[in-house]
Amino acid sequence: MYRYITFMTDFGTRDDSVGCCHGVMLGRAPDALIIDITHGIAAFDVRRGALTWANVLPYMPVGVHVGVVDPGVGTARRPLAVRAARGDILIGPDNGLAPIGAEALGGVVEAVELANEAHMLTPRSNTFHGRDIFSPMAAALATGTPLADLGPALDPATLVALTLLWPRWEGDALRCHVAYVDHFGNLRLDVDEETVVRWGLRDGDLLRVAIDPDRQGAQALDVPFTRSFGLVPPGAPALIVDSYRRLMLAINQGNAADTYAAGIDIPVVISRA
Amino acid sequence: MYRYITFMTDFGTRDDSVGCCHGVMLGRAPDALIIDITHGIAAFDVRRGALTWANVLPYMPVGVHVGVVDPGVGTARRPLAVRAARGDILIGPDNGLAPIGAEALGGVVEAVELANEAHMLTPRSNTFHGRDIFSPMAAALATGTPLADLGPALDPATLVALTLLWPRWEGDALRCHVAYVDHFGNLRLDVDEETVVRWGLRDGDLLRVAIDPDRQGAQALDVPFTRSFGLVPPGAPALIVDSYRRLMLAINQGNAADTYAAGIDIPVVISRA
Amino acid sequence: MYRYITFMTDFGTRDDSVGCCHGVMLGRAPDALIIDITHGIAAFDVRRGALTWANVLPYMPVGVHVGVVDPGVGTARRPLAVRAARGDILIGPDNGLAPIGAEALGGVVEAVELANEAHMLTPRSNTFHGRDIFSPMAAALATGTPLADLGPALDPATLVALTLLWPRWEGDALRCHVAYVDHFGNLRLDVDEETVVRWGLRDGDLLRVAIDPDRQGAQALDVPFTRSFGLVPPGAPALIVDSYRRLMLAINQGNAADTYAAGIDIPVVISRA
Repeated sequence: MYRYITFMTDFGTRDDSVGCCHGVMLGRAPDALIIDITHGIAAFDVRRGALTWANVLPYMPVGVHVGVVDPGVGTARRPLAVRAARGDILIGPDNGLAPIGAEALGGVVEAVELANEAHMLTPRSNTFHGRDIFSPMAAALATGTPLADLGPALDPATLVALTLLWPRWEGDALRCHVAYVDHFGNLRLDVDEETVVRWGLRDGDLLRVAIDPDRQGAQALDVPFTRSFGLVPPGAPALIVDSYRRLMLAINQGNAADTYAAGIDIPVVISRA
Repeated sequence: MYRYITFMTDFGTRDDSVGCCHGVMLGRAPDALIIDITHGIAAFDVRRGALTWANVLPYMPVGVHVGVVDPGVGTARRPLAVRAARGDILIGPDNGLAPIGAEALGGVVEAVELANEAHMLTPRSNTFHGRDIFSPMAAALATGTPLADLGPALDPATLVALTLLWPRWEGDALRCHVAYVDHFGNLRLDVDEETVVRWGLRDGDLLRVAIDPDRQGAQALDVPFTRSFGLVPPGAPALIVDSYRRLMLAINQGNAADTYAAGIDIPVVISRA
Repeated sequence: MYRYITFMTDFGTRDDSVGCCHGVMLGRAPDALIIDITHGIAAFDVRRGALTWANVLPYMPVGVHVGVVDPGVGTARRPLAVRAARGDILIGPDNGLAPIGAEALGGVVEAVELANEAHMLTPRSNTFHGRDIFSPMAAALATGTPLADLGPALDPATLVALTLLWPRWEGDALRCHVAYVDHFGNLRLDVDEETVVRWGLRDGDLLRVAIDPDRQGAQALDVPFTRSFGLVPPGAPALIVDSYRRLMLAINQGNAADTYAAGIDIPVVISRA
């Protein structure tokens, strides 16, 4: 039995897709507590979904985690459930989401293919497995169905793995990327806190930041490394270790993505000023 | 007693309107489970609200369904509650929403006008009946108030009916319409699966599709009829029976509405290629 | 013990921030009912957050109210909790939100600084106190922790106060402002119902409305004062006492903000026509 079901998709909130899945889940598991992690993943952006799970799942209570960012719905890609070492079960398509999410919860312990039609809706569409497969499977787990009852075991080594960009050193400069842009326009970089610590950055250090440096007319900014937005003047940039312990380029009370016309995957080169 | 209250509006999620209604409902019915079907119905689009109810209500557990798309709020239009054959109660303004929603649940069995002020907020605004009438009425039903206690019976034949567009045959070609555009830009057509089956379409059949054919310079596309997005190459179009068993024109991992500059009510003519 | 936790932020719904806070709250207080008032407050708009609380909190059941619009996160601004006369507790940064919210619930009775690290997450970020401080503190209150256990008492007179614009009379004309624009584009003015009543406005009175009158080429409209949208023809403007008992300029089935190119803080001068 699991009391919590978390839910993350690229469905958006304008349509009825999220509500439809909630109805299927709560109709079958009325005592479950559903936590919507977000439904604002950009359409088909599996990598952003995986990063979001990696960031957020450690803050969630132990439960069933449903993640649907599924450009391959209706093709041969397998629907699956994965048990993580912490005890959680992650449900979604076999496209790279689950291994990265499970890693944040101690790693994959076992995996099954969601094949038992007794736990799917009938009839079953080819375009909305969130409603017809993943939601009723999550409800089954929440109400006590054992994982093994959902389908045959899979070798975790066969799960699809996702390739992420990572930063690299170019001499004394760190070439990294915008992993995603948040609601406030902060540029979330793919640099983890460990890298920052090993680099020896300290509060107040001045860094030179080149955004998209290979672009015609690119310029570099001098930006302080600091602890929070409000420690620089309104409108000024700062490099900050963010709440998920990665580096972020922000503007106090401003929007860095708009100001620097920067978006996902743009390279950013950082060195000491 | 009803355990479930579903909720659909055109309020959007930026304002506090949805939250305010949740507060009124849960304050009076703390054991109710609220399922937000969507609050992204386009402002005043009663037809889209009705289609959404027709699509989604069969997937919801038996409950009280509140639908507020209400351009006539504060005028003489009646607030009403309708019991459907499945046992659900649908609540909303008398503007066509409820009969179409109830039809998906077996049809209207009885109807009352929401007139009992004991189940409304005091004072009562003229512009926000979602909060002041529909939410407390839903909470009353959820906590065991009989339908008859909410107001006088209405003859179901007097309910406002909505006129929907329907497709028609022009020789061997089917002239239909875009009923709505979903979050992914898929064009959802007003052609039901029964029509597709009678037409004898089979997986892989090639169709000629003219979008907005009476427009200057309109062109036709050759599009396969297939089971899901992923069975055509990324960027290619497909005609698919969607998850609500209607025909849809989609682009695999793309946005058909943007690509074809097509929106709601645009005519689409389909024939065998 | 509090059964209800309401939640208002400027986090938006695209990111995972709201979901992450829900996970922290429900993981620690599984019997709490969370009501999302809205997460669509414009980024950093503390005033809109305060107005939203003033409007909505009287409609909420007695509970813990979490409000996070927090441009000063990570600086010396204090995190605080305030008890209101009605019995509710308001949680958020000390930037003016809480006193205005509490006033709508009878006023501030006592205040504490949220300083007890036993009720915060560890580690604690400098940029996401919604997750690391405010959410676990709300869960602590919901599960029965006394207010005094969260930190030392504060003198309510030391809380940061917010300055709001107010309307003023210029002879027989009332100069007011657009306090906010709602989802439908209605211009919500900072004129309360008491002012309307003292002015003696009656249903059908004709008013002259000058929007942004000091602008080059500004024009005045003749607009009826009426009870609801639907009492003027579609596309026509109306002045209405809104559902929060303030004056609003609306267009029946239209969007006044778009039509009049008017936004927040724009002055509006109203006189009898």
